[in-house]
Amino acid sequence: MKAGIIGANGYSGVELIRFLSNHPFVQIEMLISHSTSGKNIKDLYPHLSDVCEKTLENVDIDEIAERTDLLFFAVPSGVSQSLVPQFLKKGLTCIDLSGDFRLKDPDKYTKWYQKPPAHQGYLQQAVYGLPEFYQEQIKNAKLIANPGCYPTAALLGILPAVKMGLVNFETLIIDGKSGVSGAGRGVSLGSHFCEVNENVKAYKIGVHQHTPEIEQTIQDISGEQININFTPHLIPMTRGIMCTIYAGLKKPLTTEEVVEQYKQFYESSYFARVREAGDWPATKEVYGSNYCDIGIVSDERTNRVMIISVIDNVIKGASGQAIQNMNLIYGWEEWTGLTLTPVFP
Amino acid sequence: MKAGIIGANGYSGVELIRFLSNHPFVQIEMLISHSTSGKNIKDLYPHLSDVCEKTLENVDIDEIAERTDLLFFAVPSGVSQSLVPQFLKKGLTCIDLSGDFRLKDPDKYTKWYQKPPAHQGYLQQAVYGLPEFYQEQIKNAKLIANPGCYPTAALLGILPAVKMGLVNFETLIIDGKSGVSGAGRGVSLGSHFCEVNENVKAYKIGVHQHTPEIEQTIQDISGEQININFTPHLIPMTRGIMCTIYAGLKKPLTTEEVVEQYKQFYESSYFARVREAGDWPATKEVYGSNYCDIGIVSDERTNRVMIISVIDNVIKGASGQAIQNMNLIYGWEEWTGLTLTPVFP
Amino acid sequence: MKAGIIGANGYSGVELIRFLSNHPFVQIEMLISHSTSGKNIKDLYPHLSDVCEKTLENVDIDEIAERTDLLFFAVPSGVSQSLVPQFLKKGLTCIDLSGDFRLKDPDKYTKWYQKPPAHQGYLQQAVYGLPEFYQEQIKNAKLIANPGCYPTAALLGILPAVKMGLVNFETLIIDGKSGVSGAGRGVSLGSHFCEVNENVKAYKIGVHQHTPEIEQTIQDISGEQININFTPHLIPMTRGIMCTIYAGLKKPLTTEEVVEQYKQFYESSYFARVREAGDWPATKEVYGSNYCDIGIVSDERTNRVMIISVIDNVIKGASGQAIQNMNLIYGWEEWTGLTLTPVFP
Amino acid sequence: MKAGIIGANGYSGVELIRFLSNHPFVQIEMLISHSTSGKNIKDLYPHLSDVCEKTLENVDIDEIAERTDLLFFAVPSGVSQSLVPQFLKKGLTCIDLSGDFRLKDPDKYTKWYQKPPAHQGYLQQAVYGLPEFYQEQIKNAKLIANPGCYPTAALLGILPAVKMGLVNFETLIIDGKSGVSGAGRGVSLGSHFCEVNENVKAYKIGVHQHTPEIEQTIQDISGEQININFTPHLIPMTRGIMCTIYAGLKKPLTTEEVVEQYKQFYESSYFARVREAGDWPATKEVYGSNYCDIGIVSDERTNRVMIISVIDNVIKGASGQAIQNMNLIYGWEEWTGLTLTPVFP
Repeated sequence: MKAGIIGANGYSGVELIRFLSNHPFVQIEMLISHSTSGKNIKDLYPHLSDVCEKTLENVDIDEIAERTDLLFFAVPSGVSQSLVPQFLKKGLTCIDLSGDFRLKDPDKYTKWYQKPPAHQGYLQQAVYGLPEFYQEQIKNAKLIANPGCYPTAALLGILPAVKMGLVNFETLIIDGKSGVSGAGRGVSLGSHFCEVNENVKAYKIGVHQHTPEIEQTIQDISGEQININFTPHLIPMTRGIMCTIYAGLKKPLTTEEVVEQYKQFYESSYFARVREAGDWPATKEVYGSNYCDIGIVSDERTNRVMIISVIDNVIKGASGQAIQNMNLIYGWEEWTGLTLTPVFP
Repeated sequence: MKAGIIGANGYSGVELIRFLSNHPFVQIEMLISHSTSGKNIKDLYPHLSDVCEKTLENVDIDEIAERTDLLFFAVPSGVSQSLVPQFLKKGLTCIDLSGDFRLKDPDKYTKWYQKPPAHQGYLQQAVYGLPEFYQEQIKNAKLIANPGCYPTAALLGILPAVKMGLVNFETLIIDGKSGVSGAGRGVSLGSHFCEVNENVKAYKIGVHQHTPEIEQTIQDISGEQININFTPHLIPMTRGIMCTIYAGLKKPLTTEEVVEQYKQFYESSYFARVREAGDWPATKEVYGSNYCDIGIVSDERTNRVMIISVIDNVIKGASGQAIQNMNLIYGWEEWTGLTLTPVFP
Repeated sequence: MKAGIIGANGYSGVELIRFLSNHPFVQIEMLISHSTSGKNIKDLYPHLSDVCEKTLENVDIDEIAERTDLLFFAVPSGVSQSLVPQFLKKGLTCIDLSGDFRLKDPDKYTKWYQKPPAHQGYLQQAVYGLPEFYQEQIKNAKLIANPGCYPTAALLGILPAVKMGLVNFETLIIDGKSGVSGAGRGVSLGSHFCEVNENVKAYKIGVHQHTPEIEQTIQDISGEQININFTPHLIPMTRGIMCTIYAGLKKPLTTEEVVEQYKQFYESSYFARVREAGDWPATKEVYGSNYCDIGIVSDERTNRVMIISVIDNVIKGASGQAIQNMNLIYGWEEWTGLTLTPVFP
Repeated sequence: MKAGIIGANGYSGVELIRFLSNHPFVQIEMLISHSTSGKNIKDLYPHLSDVCEKTLENVDIDEIAERTDLLFFAVPSGVSQSLVPQFLKKGLTCIDLSGDFRLKDPDKYTKWYQKPPAHQGYLQQAVYGLPEFYQEQIKNAKLIANPGCYPTAALLGILPAVKMGLVNFETLIIDGKSGVSGAGRGVSLGSHFCEVNENVKAYKIGVHQHTPEIEQTIQDISGEQININFTPHLIPMTRGIMCTIYAGLKKPLTTEEVVEQYKQFYESSYFARVREAGDWPATKEVYGSNYCDIGIVSDERTNRVMIISVIDNVIKGASGQAIQNMNLIYGWEEWTGLTLTPVFP
């Protein structure tokens, strides 16, 4: 199987290179980048010396279609919506890490992304690539809308409770904390070391584009319309996302009861690890891995459940999940090439 | 005016030294520490060379009472409850930075601190030292219960809305993010660099001792009983606390309307700065200062208001606020010795 | 006395604002910036809310000359060389924080800065603003070339040994470690959080423009020509510079002997603090202050002395030293407005 | 092949678990720890959930000898010297990550480690496990003295120049910069987040125990007696070591010439990567991998060469190198189980 990476020069791109370099069934055929074509990837990322020393190539549809079977789009939103259809027509499998095909309702895309949406047909065709909940659909997909980093953490944390009918949706609040790599390698004052280090800041309060993605998936699972509050914060670290989720319980449950139900729910999910009552995960405990760790507290004083969900945003929140989706599409074990133990400390 | 600092060898202690060294009306007479008496403070904290080179002294009640007018207690909880009464009897003014005199209900202290409480009489006598709300009581106090770091940020953020009747209390959720200095200089795995750096973790979910302190003060202002959720998180930074506060609005208000009401509310408060609509404070923007900065978003989709409140936990959350209380007690301008511009970047 | 700051929107600029806002004898009259004129400084730096809310103004020579007595140039190299002469002619005192007037030899400027130099006459007129060594010249200066951050740390560390004739110059090696703020607020991949955090990198090895500045001053003090090795490193922190200096001893001396000579040497220098034998300063111990702390080890195995010198690069390495120079020019105590205790932790 | 890890509860221990869990030819049979026996490793390190959930066992010589073929000692210095001989007698292969068997001269151990040394016979038997220079000896070893973290970086940087006769030894200076994980998981003020973060400090100047280890190996390769200066610094990061090496050239060579010689020298070394002239490695570019990256500058002004050498201290500086040694002993490819791409960003 020959793979190409469009946007190979970004953080998600080089992480795809890392995983594919160690994957037993796939070979990296092309690294593609509009802005840095002609350069060797190791000159942009010296850590790849001896690992992958390919030259970045330009976006040539015909050549890409000829040389590759499978494409990863590690690009900003607004880019893949015009490229993906051309490759689908030529029979390639497309895994899009951007937000372009995630929202089924094009008006919501326009509202939250402030850009024109992809064509409706492709939006319908795209499968939301959250394997723990859409495994069967993913297996038959040609176009994967790989979930956003925050939605991955938030949904893996709350969806079991939603599906099992434990919580009231109108009470749902998600407080997100993310490392800086989520914003990519592009330079801006917001990612300047001196402005981020020894600092916490909230951003895009009430208007973050991951809000409708979370809502849409909860609605898809529950059948009910909901509005949530999602507040993202920037944390002085490179990798990692934590979502702290607050939800009112429909009926009182102890922490132990909720933990037990979550453990059963995720029993056959390789990458979801549920902590025992009294233990909550920290982001570093999944650093460098595809795991999502979940901790739970039920507070009888307020009859709310608090769920802590952590991932490595570049892996389970982007490139690792993309590989997981690829594995499912091609019928391989979902953990193939992804059995990386977290790097600790 | 001659001041002594009990627990001068901790982070709050040295920060008191920094402020008092530059205060025009007060002189540091004694640095007191049980565990490090006999050592020079500059050997424990070389940054104090040439600034303050006093030798730490033991806890000798009579001598302290003779040499000082005013005592700061920068000690862990459980310590000042037995010391303060002895000094009050000798006429000294006591400002306690620990939690010992904050909760009026001794049973709540026992429950949340897991320790025996102070005597009821002193609990009643103690004035809660949040100057923006209890200025008049503070002016006449002999014993100040200096607020906790999280409660300071949380209460300055939410109390205006409480007092103006804007929000439903039962919906109140406070998501706290703190730097590591809040845990003090004592060594533990939880403050080991390698365990904190590049990491976020939640802790004491549902059982943090600052919860009843926040609830008690909201109840005191509003007259209503409430239970809140408060979830503290440890952030890989040294200083700074952010509280992200979620509360349901009683009736719809725009962000601009809430901002305007907050600006009016804090008009005469020197250290509370309210941001314009669309702008939210980051912790670094108050670093090294006694300011509390507040940003507000009203979300019409959920009819909730989100309030971002930030302080430097060692200053407005501890030593700076203690100085502010001292200024009020002695009739000086509340900002005396505290007009420090935040250190940025 | 009315001061203007050209380049007020950079990190050195805002730090000048912080110091001047608390200075008893000087008033900030104008904040000047070509690129951000028309904006309010508090919109660029919210931490300055209520502290300094001036609007940035354009570079209008006549107006500036009319309204101010004293100008600070907090600009990149290559800018002040054309501006300073115009203001000198109009009688203003100029303190230049850039490298434009530091090197007496214009050819060296051209070689190391890769830019055309300032006019020879102004290079000769400029006084190198290292108060611990050029105090008398500074008192009579109209144009100060404020030292670079690395040279300040390196020279305060090595010059006593040079002046007292303790070391062989040809053996001199300076290994520099700097926080990221030294590179300013401009965005670049080199200051992107994810590229700096959890990382150390060397840069400009053998070609850093501070090399000839260090050499020139050692030569000025010693009368001998020398070439040194200076290797700068970028450290994942915002503020602070450490220079680790290696020099061969002319004749054997114990650590205690060298420490004693340094202590005597700096006895009357307010901002130089020499540590006892066996104790070496860390950068955080001068954070937020104008101190330079120095530690010394003499190694009899190699007959070399190692000198550790630390400063806050934005203060003693830039804006604080500029204020110190201003104080000397106007006959005030050199520490006026600069008696800030380091912020620790 | 069945392996045991003594000291499995430390940072080097868990990193050995990570590597061995993915090694095709070795199985972890026992995790051994005196202080934490009886606990499950996943309770000490939750990131190991589902990866390795063994219970830590006590040090029982007979049982260990019965169940394992190979032992890793990830213990502080002073511990393995009494354990290793007992296991060697029972025929086990021992790889010691501590300093106990590195110095051939027991007096030097006593002087620099301030402890009694191992028995002379074992010191002679031990093979210094730096595979790039002692590969043949390692292949036949029963006892490996795995190099220290600083010596690994320093020696891989300077030994080619030593072996090729390019430099004068008496001029050798090594300025080391290390992340905090090198000090292990034990708690101390020196590894407290608030004391390390936003800080650089030098330590053990002139007395660090890695000094004689570096000297001994250079002497072994060159046949000459030397004394060096080695100055370690603590950097606010978790992983990574950089050594900046300064050495006088015997005869002038350009940067390109030295780079070319190094490239040839390391041509067949899998884990040593030499950068092109003008490019120098940063520690993050080897983070999470077993690589050592080397950059070189020759400065004609001073006739010195500067060599930048970086490793991940926990991997190439400890556990990864131990695995590499194990691979050589058992005749496997040296990179077996170690082909980890650096984690970037």
